[in-house]
Amino acid sequence: MSDAKRVSIADLRDHVGETVEVRGWLYSKRSSGKISFLLIRDGTGIVQGVLVEKEVDSATWSAYDALTQESSLAARGTVRADTRAPGGTELSLSVVEPLQIAEDYPIGPKEHGVDFLLNHRHLWLRSSRPWHVMRIRDEIIFAIREFFHQRAFVCLDSPILTRAIGEEAGTLFETEYFDLGKASLAQTGQLYVEAGAMAHGKVYCFGPTFRAEKSKTRRHLTEFWMLEPEMAWYDWEDNMALQEELVEHVVKQVLARRGADLEGLGRDMDRLRRVQRPFPRLSYDEAVDVLREKGSAIEWGADFGGEDQTLLTDSYDRPVFVHSFPKAVKAFYMKQHPTRPDVVLCNDLFAPEGYGEIIGGSQREDDHDRLVARIREEGLPEAAYDWYLELRKYGSVPHSGFGLGLERTISWICGLDHLREAIPFPRLINRITP
Amino acid sequence: MSDAKRVSIADLRDHVGETVEVRGWLYSKRSSGKISFLLIRDGTGIVQGVLVEKEVDSATWSAYDALTQESSLAARGTVRADTRAPGGTELSLSVVEPLQIAEDYPIGPKEHGVDFLLNHRHLWLRSSRPWHVMRIRDEIIFAIREFFHQRAFVCLDSPILTRAIGEEAGTLFETEYFDLGKASLAQTGQLYVEAGAMAHGKVYCFGPTFRAEKSKTRRHLTEFWMLEPEMAWYDWEDNMALQEELVEHVVKQVLARRGADLEGLGRDMDRLRRVQRPFPRLSYDEAVDVLREKGSAIEWGADFGGEDQTLLTDSYDRPVFVHSFPKAVKAFYMKQHPTRPDVVLCNDLFAPEGYGEIIGGSQREDDHDRLVARIREEGLPEAAYDWYLELRKYGSVPHSGFGLGLERTISWICGLDHLREAIPFPRLINRITP
Repeated sequence: MSDAKRVSIADLRDHVGETVEVRGWLYSKRSSGKISFLLIRDGTGIVQGVLVEKEVDSATWSAYDALTQESSLAARGTVRADTRAPGGTELSLSVVEPLQIAEDYPIGPKEHGVDFLLNHRHLWLRSSRPWHVMRIRDEIIFAIREFFHQRAFVCLDSPILTRAIGEEAGTLFETEYFDLGKASLAQTGQLYVEAGAMAHGKVYCFGPTFRAEKSKTRRHLTEFWMLEPEMAWYDWEDNMALQEELVEHVVKQVLARRGADLEGLGRDMDRLRRVQRPFPRLSYDEAVDVLREKGSAIEWGADFGGEDQTLLTDSYDRPVFVHSFPKAVKAFYMKQHPTRPDVVLCNDLFAPEGYGEIIGGSQREDDHDRLVARIREEGLPEAAYDWYLELRKYGSVPHSGFGLGLERTISWICGLDHLREAIPFPRLINRITP
Repeated sequence: MSDAKRVSIADLRDHVGETVEVRGWLYSKRSSGKISFLLIRDGTGIVQGVLVEKEVDSATWSAYDALTQESSLAARGTVRADTRAPGGTELSLSVVEPLQIAEDYPIGPKEHGVDFLLNHRHLWLRSSRPWHVMRIRDEIIFAIREFFHQRAFVCLDSPILTRAIGEEAGTLFETEYFDLGKASLAQTGQLYVEAGAMAHGKVYCFGPTFRAEKSKTRRHLTEFWMLEPEMAWYDWEDNMALQEELVEHVVKQVLARRGADLEGLGRDMDRLRRVQRPFPRLSYDEAVDVLREKGSAIEWGADFGGEDQTLLTDSYDRPVFVHSFPKAVKAFYMKQHPTRPDVVLCNDLFAPEGYGEIIGGSQREDDHDRLVARIREEGLPEAAYDWYLELRKYGSVPHSGFGLGLERTISWICGLDHLREAIPFPRLINRITP
């Protein structure tokens, strides 16, 4: 087939009238006697190829019978415009060459249980729904990095193997580290990006983080990706402004560049188009009042459960900030409110449509002695924080940052039911393979 | 200081003649009686501020005495063009307000041992050399992601917690995984991106990888970042073409966007400007002949040591490909040469100037039975590869990929002596903190 130009299915619309070669896999097929239809996918899209018995040689005509679902193949044909087709084109096939015949591909058009699909995740990724989700994930990752690159942030990767404890003890994965005893897998890179912000002003890390939580909910993974920007001289309100600018940018880029994938998932895109600044801002106090008016039994001082998050956001068409939470439900490093010692200068950002928290952020405690007092209050191992405390001794400045959970953000934007669909190979309390 | 516009030091050149506010840290200071000079850094750059006693109030004049190295401060002044200054500007200061006074900052202008500096890595990052390196690292990461985004690759993050063994047993970090026994930290994401390439055609992962190697050389970290693209339908030669296009793009973008940082490191930029396609290509056979002519004692069949790599590349002004290595020194998943069963369709890419291997790549074995035979030959645990083998049962296609070591690439581009300077918080056999 060396005389035909090789073209990706996504690019076929630029080659109408030309004879091209496509390489890929058989997605499905059907025949009506003298005409056969092959749906071919190549990773960039799907196209229907049409075989007419009287127009092709017998080897190509019999390829239809040989080809099973997910068999690999090369095909040559003429590109025809077809406005009814998903990519706007169809292929009139002249040659089809099977390459490797797949026997009994396990994933068919019938319904499969989620455990079966997760056991076959290495193959399930080829199905249309995971395919769309991973393309959107890719675009969200790039839109995030592009946002920070445009704003002169420096990407400062934080280590995974660490002695420092970021959020809480008790949910750590540990490993033996040569002669140095145990290392634990990072739950957060925040402490490290705080050091980076004092060197570069504005930095971020974006990598995998780990929580050995025994939670088995649709909002938990044991391994997930987190974006953590940290900015010197930002107060908690500057911090919220950056968060909403980021979320607006990401949603806008996904709509612009991955609209067809959102459509493929059946996502209500009008809801995403309404994600525009400014986002509503409620104090924790106000949020508790709203929740109680709506019938929640929440008491001041409690953190929001999943139901409260949904109840709170269902009056809004875009993400909602709640700020100034009680100190008792938040991490030790958050800065105390200047006039209310029971409150810290923090915020959560809750996605609409019941998707819950996608961002947690705060101004950081920049006073050395107060930070030591908080570490002691929480009973944390002070020695592990020695270097972190030094950041408050040598040119401490007001600074803020936040953590955005990548899979939670993907789940919301794609409209998924469970975080496990938002990552290529999910790790759950009962799943470490494939 | 609310009436002056706040400006980053990097942007001062756009504000010549204006009165602006700068916030940052004292880098160093000197005085000549009635005039004092403060070098101020803010993470985006360094600027010299000039204080003239008779032109400022006494609080600002005495700030000079109060400010120690790395104290935080806010300063107001008028921007003056100064072609001798690094950023092209200087500040005539009118107000200086110390914020937090640093006492006895441990890193001074005197020489420190590398262990001392690594123990203070959270502060050392503020020094000019690590600062330049991290800015270049940031740009390399972005240039890589931009390259693949422009070429419609999908970023498909591979898991860290895994059962599969990628490269070799014996150098794995392990952790208890709930009731499922032990999980190990990924040495590579390759097996996973191979599954991804069958779903998306062209994919890559780019994240941390782990090797519990007891090596204490300047070319080893226990935790390092690796880029791993994988492309369906690419043969080993397409693979090399993509590698050289990538490396050329990255070097070009660093030269274009981080030239001042390369200069700050004293890097010979002419050498980087010569990194242009095509790169020289030698077969392993040819490379062994060249090495023996140059005096190496290498025998056919042996892998190249560091000295051989340097010897081989020192005749070239750009990176050098060596392809078609003996099967015995390469990983089990590489495809056998069609006519020479002792050789595999792979390549290494060696950086010039003695920086050694930065890329290893290959066409993958796509035949199911041959791959099983190789797994058995190597004595690898066959059961761990069950899902990987399935990729050869369901629509196997020729495919290739490679791994680029991020820190090795940074080391070469920056001209560093040791990988530990190429990552924010290095992890070495004897180092897990800060």
